[in-house]
Amino acid sequence: MKALVYHGPGKKAWEEKPKPVITEPTDAIVKIFKTTICGTDLHIMKGDLPAVSDGRIIGHEGVGIIDEAGTAVSNFKKGDHVLISCITSCGKCEYCKKAMYSHCEKGGWILGNMIDGTQAEYVRIPYADNSLYPIPAGADEEALVMLSDILPTGFECGVLNGQVKPGDTIAIVGAGPIGLAALLTAQFFSPAEIIMIDQDDNRLHVAKTFGATQIINSSEKGSVEKIMKLTKNKGVDVAIEAVGVPATFELCQEIIGAGGHIANIGVHGKSVTLHLENLWSKNITITTRLVDTVSTPMLFKNVQSGNLDPNKLITHHFTLDQVIEAYETFGNAANEKALKVILTNG
Amino acid sequence: MKALVYHGPGKKAWEEKPKPVITEPTDAIVKIFKTTICGTDLHIMKGDLPAVSDGRIIGHEGVGIIDEAGTAVSNFKKGDHVLISCITSCGKCEYCKKAMYSHCEKGGWILGNMIDGTQAEYVRIPYADNSLYPIPAGADEEALVMLSDILPTGFECGVLNGQVKPGDTIAIVGAGPIGLAALLTAQFFSPAEIIMIDQDDNRLHVAKTFGATQIINSSEKGSVEKIMKLTKNKGVDVAIEAVGVPATFELCQEIIGAGGHIANIGVHGKSVTLHLENLWSKNITITTRLVDTVSTPMLFKNVQSGNLDPNKLITHHFTLDQVIEAYETFGNAANEKALKVILTNG
Amino acid sequence: MKALVYHGPGKKAWEEKPKPVITEPTDAIVKIFKTTICGTDLHIMKGDLPAVSDGRIIGHEGVGIIDEAGTAVSNFKKGDHVLISCITSCGKCEYCKKAMYSHCEKGGWILGNMIDGTQAEYVRIPYADNSLYPIPAGADEEALVMLSDILPTGFECGVLNGQVKPGDTIAIVGAGPIGLAALLTAQFFSPAEIIMIDQDDNRLHVAKTFGATQIINSSEKGSVEKIMKLTKNKGVDVAIEAVGVPATFELCQEIIGAGGHIANIGVHGKSVTLHLENLWSKNITITTRLVDTVSTPMLFKNVQSGNLDPNKLITHHFTLDQVIEAYETFGNAANEKALKVILTNG
Amino acid sequence: MKALVYHGPGKKAWEEKPKPVITEPTDAIVKIFKTTICGTDLHIMKGDLPAVSDGRIIGHEGVGIIDEAGTAVSNFKKGDHVLISCITSCGKCEYCKKAMYSHCEKGGWILGNMIDGTQAEYVRIPYADNSLYPIPAGADEEALVMLSDILPTGFECGVLNGQVKPGDTIAIVGAGPIGLAALLTAQFFSPAEIIMIDQDDNRLHVAKTFGATQIINSSEKGSVEKIMKLTKNKGVDVAIEAVGVPATFELCQEIIGAGGHIANIGVHGKSVTLHLENLWSKNITITTRLVDTVSTPMLFKNVQSGNLDPNKLITHHFTLDQVIEAYETFGNAANEKALKVILTNG
Repeated sequence: MKALVYHGPGKKAWEEKPKPVITEPTDAIVKIFKTTICGTDLHIMKGDLPAVSDGRIIGHEGVGIIDEAGTAVSNFKKGDHVLISCITSCGKCEYCKKAMYSHCEKGGWILGNMIDGTQAEYVRIPYADNSLYPIPAGADEEALVMLSDILPTGFECGVLNGQVKPGDTIAIVGAGPIGLAALLTAQFFSPAEIIMIDQDDNRLHVAKTFGATQIINSSEKGSVEKIMKLTKNKGVDVAIEAVGVPATFELCQEIIGAGGHIANIGVHGKSVTLHLENLWSKNITITTRLVDTVSTPMLFKNVQSGNLDPNKLITHHFTLDQVIEAYETFGNAANEKALKVILTNG
Repeated sequence: MKALVYHGPGKKAWEEKPKPVITEPTDAIVKIFKTTICGTDLHIMKGDLPAVSDGRIIGHEGVGIIDEAGTAVSNFKKGDHVLISCITSCGKCEYCKKAMYSHCEKGGWILGNMIDGTQAEYVRIPYADNSLYPIPAGADEEALVMLSDILPTGFECGVLNGQVKPGDTIAIVGAGPIGLAALLTAQFFSPAEIIMIDQDDNRLHVAKTFGATQIINSSEKGSVEKIMKLTKNKGVDVAIEAVGVPATFELCQEIIGAGGHIANIGVHGKSVTLHLENLWSKNITITTRLVDTVSTPMLFKNVQSGNLDPNKLITHHFTLDQVIEAYETFGNAANEKALKVILTNG
Repeated sequence: MKALVYHGPGKKAWEEKPKPVITEPTDAIVKIFKTTICGTDLHIMKGDLPAVSDGRIIGHEGVGIIDEAGTAVSNFKKGDHVLISCITSCGKCEYCKKAMYSHCEKGGWILGNMIDGTQAEYVRIPYADNSLYPIPAGADEEALVMLSDILPTGFECGVLNGQVKPGDTIAIVGAGPIGLAALLTAQFFSPAEIIMIDQDDNRLHVAKTFGATQIINSSEKGSVEKIMKLTKNKGVDVAIEAVGVPATFELCQEIIGAGGHIANIGVHGKSVTLHLENLWSKNITITTRLVDTVSTPMLFKNVQSGNLDPNKLITHHFTLDQVIEAYETFGNAANEKALKVILTNG
Repeated sequence: MKALVYHGPGKKAWEEKPKPVITEPTDAIVKIFKTTICGTDLHIMKGDLPAVSDGRIIGHEGVGIIDEAGTAVSNFKKGDHVLISCITSCGKCEYCKKAMYSHCEKGGWILGNMIDGTQAEYVRIPYADNSLYPIPAGADEEALVMLSDILPTGFECGVLNGQVKPGDTIAIVGAGPIGLAALLTAQFFSPAEIIMIDQDDNRLHVAKTFGATQIINSSEKGSVEKIMKLTKNKGVDVAIEAVGVPATFELCQEIIGAGGHIANIGVHGKSVTLHLENLWSKNITITTRLVDTVSTPMLFKNVQSGNLDPNKLITHHFTLDQVIEAYETFGNAANEKALKVILTNG
């Protein structure tokens, strides 16, 4: 089969690889129908994740069709249409039993990282019963690709951890795909105000069409003052960090109100300064989280019911064998006005 | 001043009464601007609440203007526009400190019940700082009348107690004003399906325009079967009882799924049968609640932001001195297609 | 092997049966070391559970040693000491993913009910990885038999569902083994007062030594008055029903305070009267639950740390082949002053 | 009357001051019976809190007797014995209604800070109904002094915010009075292991007698390794920071397990480093809090029931006029083996 293979920092190729086979009775082989590229994949390609070895097939999102199911797989059979979770869950370790699949002792985020991933014609999915979700006939399969990672990440790490409530004033720092996923799913809880903050006017404009009630370009002076004014100097109830650099985490600390929640989604490469000299008495809560994808079934229901339209996040389409070109577009997102790209197999 | 006075079962009059005066330093006198009639007021008029004495001014909802504030009132001053809560809260008893204002040792639901109420030109509000809410300039005051009772009741007793969550399938039994208030506010939490059940096709039609995804006329055969089919025989996640008779509570028990919540809003006059022989092992939760109006500030924010439009509940308008006529319309709600009526003073 | 077999109402025998074999790759065969008898087993023997068929081996509690593990079992291997949960969990259905193992689509309470159970020399345990717990060397294995059913039941259905909090005044109605299990585990949350209610003075005496702060014999007049006096007429914060008949559920309704929780543990054979005419405005919560055994790992830790001593519940010892005699003792619990009996194999 | 007065950094005097008088109808004047000294008072005396002005009477803890009650005070009358909360709550602002009294718009921590405090013969308490608690006849009033600040602080900021659960392994960093208050109240939730960490062997010894299951002297090498070994390299479920310096907050980050809670109690004078480069994917929660004293009524109940013995924290006794000497002892706590000192008036 053909797959996108990582060959060390800066090197990748669309090349022939052996079709995966079942190695455990709990495995399934999925024929990829549609997949996408994650911001994390760009980091891998740059060499930022040294644990990813030369020869690894990249990608941890997608939908497909069961090609073969192991003898211990009971939820799926050949021919079933499935959604692939970016998180592999064994369903029987201490963490899985606590619904913290991200820290599964045998799984977690391993796809396209420790084991071969989804930017390929076929992929092996360990613990298939707990790591795949059935897609009923007639569903919009392309839209569901957004449920592999980006929507549960925005929702669980940002919205759920931030404890967004009806009537809240929330701020989302970062209007990239992940911040926009938080924006879309924050609306499940009907906050009164959603302030979107970014340095890119185009993304802020998109945010407005996705439901932001206020937009702030943080490259301009006085962003903090504007936000404080909007909140009558009380600060926001929830600040969602969706970038992953010290400056944006700093901003969250500056605008958080007493009793508020700072929910970190960003993948941080270095430490940040925590201003406990100010915050020790402000009754705030700070959370971090690697997505558990426990909300996938709920997101699925809300897509089916029309409460959530994942297609809003999809801006570009390619065939799977155009994956190198797709990486170029996605890697140049600001100029290309790209959010998520879809790669279709065959 | 003029007021609507209860004179025993079946007797009421719009008549002259002394203007109320401040009796405690925590009191305020409010000049009524707009008020409304509650289903409970109809019960009072029939004599169903024997604790209500002859001579009592009825009504527990409304907006107005502070006419005079007691010396210990600090949140309000003469001329302030205010929303009146149906629940009086002293702010300093054991129950108020637990945010269970409904059971306030000195308050609770006393307005238009144990003390004179709001269907009058003026009303005395005890513990004004904790029982009134400020209305900012420019707000839609008529819409806010719906925040005195009906919307917090639907939300707190039905939606919050029912723990409605994104993706849930919920059923609301009863499409009268209170069931519709639950319907409007349930959408704060983005359930996937909202099944509305009533015996009146007109009300079900209204429910559809308010956001119900399914409507069931329970006077037709097979209602339970239809609901079970809609839920793939799992039953609903949340059943909200908004009528108050044994048959509707029975229905909730028949359609509730394992792990589900039955949230009772209805004012029941007699006991019901609880089928513990079936339910003991179904992991269900049943709740009752007299509204605490703790959600009023949040509802206020969501009205201001446009997340909630209370005007949908208002079908008829009268002047305050037409209150007898308004009672006739509201008391004949099905024929009049009446939901809530507004009475405007002057 | 030898096993206790049900042969229709009133008939049971300790007789030869085929040793169980692995039928699914997720199965394990456990050699029973110690087991016990549950009140539910007495009901089965009387014929109260018609779904239990003639020929069924009874019992759903116990500890043992893995005799053989299926090819898909990864948490256990031959020779491991294990605790058997009364609830079988597949770990991969909708309910298991919500930690509601009691309603597992392929499991739930099936042991000694729909499939052969633990009052035998060997037992087949389906979905072994999710339905067994490892016992480390040196643990008090006899004590752990109490973690198969009775302690998680008292804790989950009574204490957790009742939301017992520090400082609460709680009442437990029924001082049998299950009520006493609730009593022991309620103390995890440090309620200020624990009122134990029963008709048997001996059991009440035992309750006192287990940590009850007040005991009430409900066969005497004025029980409700006594409890109301103890609570300054406010009623209790939590009432735990641990009997399963209408009279005890009625008592819970009479003593529950505003805002309180009634947690039903009892297995009810008929419906009860729910006094919504009084309770509709009392802001109460009523829960039912079949134990999920999600708390087993926590209970295990608290046994190891000394926070919980399950041996207090064990009053009698037999060898497994004395099981008929053990049933007689346990079936005559009041006279025998029996709580839980231990049956040791070999 | 006599009072302890702050006269700028390093200067204090026990001197004559005017007896306070009622200035608002919601005030009460309390005659102090017993008071104590807080670590924060030492900071004030050093000049660390520049907002405290020359001439201020210090102290925010104590019990006493109502000497006079304002006209709007309804919960108390002259002669009532009362517990003084360190936090003043108006009961009617946005924050008080959310039970976040620490941020009361008119109160919060003002006693012995922005207004005169309790190390005096009399003190004026604003919003007396919401800032005092009744003491019934026969209660151990000296013990209750520990409920003014230290016990609710340890409980709310450490234990509640840390979400200590039965079976948890928790670490408390700092075995001073506040860490010991967290230790005592953490046991309300029956954690399996409580690891106490400090650099003072005497305090660690005390911690052991208060219920710590493990003690670690962090001045010795390998503390982190020891803790990780105790937790089988998983880290702790809850880490409570009870010191307030960067090194102890750092330690909490090193030992926290995936999914764990870091609850900060310490008053920090400078910022700390937050290692998001490690923690972003660890699903942790960090909280800060100024005590709200919402738990005071519960703590009171658990003192009455014997679940909590505050006397354990009291090591030294003085008369109120020996307050200067008491400060010396308390300021030299390590050598004096002092925890809390009691100052008795008359």
